[in-house]
Amino acid sequence: MATNLFDYAYDLEKALRNSNEFIHLKMMYTEVENDEIAKSMFDAFRNIQMNLQQKQMEGRDITETEIMEAQEIANQVQGNEKVTRLMEAEQQLSMSINELNKIIMKPLDELYGFINQ
Amino acid sequence: MATNLFDYAYDLEKALRNSNEFIHLKMMYTEVENDEIAKSMFDAFRNIQMNLQQKQMEGRDITETEIMEAQEIANQVQGNEKVTRLMEAEQQLSMSINELNKIIMKPLDELYGFINQ
Ligand SMILES: [Ca+2]
Ligand SMILES: [Ca+2]
Repeated sequence: MATNLFDYAYDLEKALRNSNEFIHLKMMYTEVENDEIAKSMFDAFRNIQMNLQQKQMEGRDITETEIMEAQEIANQVQGNEKVTRLMEAEQQLSMSINELNKIIMKPLDELYGFINQ
Repeated sequence: MATNLFDYAYDLEKALRNSNEFIHLKMMYTEVENDEIAKSMFDAFRNIQMNLQQKQMEGRDITETEIMEAQEIANQVQGNEKVTRLMEAEQQLSMSINELNKIIMKPLDELYGFINQ
């Protein structure tokens, strides 16, 4: 790969690191990290999410107990402002990153004739 | 998102479009497109691959007949120089894109403490 291509990626990385969305996400993340209750909720929620995703990817069945556990933690999480703000910040950044990926991958989409709107 | 971030993505997109790897991939793709035998092999291989991936994602069983069919087409494909060159070009570009993604996603990896080598 031409050095060039890497250079453009490094520029984009720097822009992402200095973007309002990323700086906001970092702040929201620090707020959760510094709050024991918020932190343990966030970790528990993330763990359950990752477990369920893993099971789904492996084609294993998800039990009713697991669904109920996930819902219980999701409810707790919705009541904690720091965690919900962090999750909103994550979602915003994730949407921006999807937009960036769409832009960057356009040459390949065109080559293979895919249409992602 | 700041306009800025988009601008950097557009620059990277342009660099990718003008990169040797992408131009090479386009040439290899055109060679296959212009050769009926190569084209039908490539399409058949791609279709089977996508079917199997879809089934796997949905946790459905893959039959022995399907595995044998996939192997048969994979063998045919390996005997066709145009198709193998296209697949090599795809793999090379895909490796470069993985590198680019690693660079761009570094701020997020750092924030969450993941290590992707
Ligand atoms: Ca697209
Ligand atoms: Ca990394």
